[in-house]
Amino acid sequence: MLAACSGGADSMALASALAFEAPRAGLRAGGVTVDHGLQQGSDARAAEVADRMRALGLAPVEAIAVSVGRGGGPEAAARDARYAALDAAAERHGAAAVLLGHTRDDQAETVLLGLARGSGTRSLSGMAWVSGADGRYRRPFLQLDRHTVREACLAQSLPVWDDPHNVDPSYTRSRVRHEALPILEKALGKGVVEALARTAQLSRDDADALDAWAARAEADVMTTAPAAAGGVQAVHLDTVGLHGLPTAVRRRVLRRAAIAAGAPAGSLFARHIEEVDRLITGWRGQRAINLPGRVEVRREGGRLVIRQG
Amino acid sequence: MLAACSGGADSMALASALAFEAPRAGLRAGGVTVDHGLQQGSDARAAEVADRMRALGLAPVEAIAVSVGRGGGPEAAARDARYAALDAAAERHGAAAVLLGHTRDDQAETVLLGLARGSGTRSLSGMAWVSGADGRYRRPFLQLDRHTVREACLAQSLPVWDDPHNVDPSYTRSRVRHEALPILEKALGKGVVEALARTAQLSRDDADALDAWAARAEADVMTTAPAAAGGVQAVHLDTVGLHGLPTAVRRRVLRRAAIAAGAPAGSLFARHIEEVDRLITGWRGQRAINLPGRVEVRREGGRLVIRQG
Repeated sequence: MLAACSGGADSMALASALAFEAPRAGLRAGGVTVDHGLQQGSDARAAEVADRMRALGLAPVEAIAVSVGRGGGPEAAARDARYAALDAAAERHGAAAVLLGHTRDDQAETVLLGLARGSGTRSLSGMAWVSGADGRYRRPFLQLDRHTVREACLAQSLPVWDDPHNVDPSYTRSRVRHEALPILEKALGKGVVEALARTAQLSRDDADALDAWAARAEADVMTTAPAAAGGVQAVHLDTVGLHGLPTAVRRRVLRRAAIAAGAPAGSLFARHIEEVDRLITGWRGQRAINLPGRVEVRREGGRLVIRQG
Repeated sequence: MLAACSGGADSMALASALAFEAPRAGLRAGGVTVDHGLQQGSDARAAEVADRMRALGLAPVEAIAVSVGRGGGPEAAARDARYAALDAAAERHGAAAVLLGHTRDDQAETVLLGLARGSGTRSLSGMAWVSGADGRYRRPFLQLDRHTVREACLAQSLPVWDDPHNVDPSYTRSRVRHEALPILEKALGKGVVEALARTAQLSRDDADALDAWAARAEADVMTTAPAAAGGVQAVHLDTVGLHGLPTAVRRRVLRRAAIAAGAPAGSLFARHIEEVDRLITGWRGQRAINLPGRVEVRREGGRLVIRQG
């Protein structure tokens, strides 16, 4: 079991808790810190964080330097590099789990960021307790508020380091944390963080149930899909079956089918799926609809034919 | 068809649009304004708004004085009194529909207010296009932004009146409008209002689909429910059937059953349902659980028995 630790209060409390609990539970516990190389002296900082984890009794402990790309903006690029390093460390050490120090406050921020995308229930479901390949990532602090976790650091006199990115207003998450959430609490009351975290859990349950329904419905409405000449798979859906589904399920089926036919999930927006949906619910002889990834959807009689051009 | 008009910009634009469109569509169109009696001179104000609607060509036009109670806080009490008056006016005039001037910005505010409750997908679904008994209430401006609607008032030189409650920071909605949303836009970008409105529609579709699933599942897992001596209905549910449902559906079934057994919907919170759910998913011989409305839930072998005491 590995604690992922930036040296900040949340993950130092996590490293400390793991170092305390693991021997009592008969588990081997180490730690990893990732040096993103984005600030002057970040390598010395990472070495120091690793030393602090060793001082807590974690072993093995590693500081891993990564190189952060530019894909998807600075926050996403740093996250991608970090998780790739954590995955590699878990494999290297044969760790069954990597613990992350995300708190309920982080969860609330994630829900607000998802809300800003306006892409529905799944994007409101925040971070999972357990995620990643084989459920590798665990977030044991996800129901603890940040204040409680920081108190734990104070009580143990743990040295912590505050990443200046956390207060840099050029980062969206930092603006959410320091500007949006305090104002929301002022407008809506003190329970906002808790309400957002509860929204995450309820949304996750709802999205899981609807995805399961959509998977079953897809199997029911999908008719034979002959492989096209070039080997690209065309998807055929039965329009009568689609018409009988609730809107939420039908649109999920259409989205799944478009992705199966080759449309990239990240470029497929609600407005695309709504337009495809009108071939079912508002049929008046429309022409074929073009989706990202050169995927074309056309209605041919009682079938919807989705194929990559 | 009646326009409900406070005299504010949104509903004056609505009244004006209705007065313009109705004769062209061969519809009879009148207007109603409600005097909540909460401010000095509100009766004169209501009479003036009624005159303005007459000047637009609406007929019949009524100003209705209501008395606002105290139930559920000042905003809820005013809303209850207003809708009761609008319902009565619709009945009196045989109106098939009452049009309301809510804009996309109002929808975004409603989603944020629902988010603060943290009670899930249904509470994020905002206001419906069509609602009320027989679909009486219609919100034709729900996808228009407030700015566009106000421009329409300016372009027509419509006299409008701004309700001081709309800027009174002691009202939650006013704080959401003037404090929370501007800061959220600053933190998350200009598309926040649109994203919240889209969240409302997606959440509504999702909640509708899950409610439909829960209704079907309830019929499957409900076993004979003999009437108790006092005539109070006990509900019996099959625990094996419940266990096989996704969490989101199972909890909706449990909520429906608790309400059917007499628990008041407004007092039944997520934590109650979670506790009941543990009789299914975490059974270790728990005692009966007490819900609001003197409703008791106990597990008896392969059955969950829900009854009012």
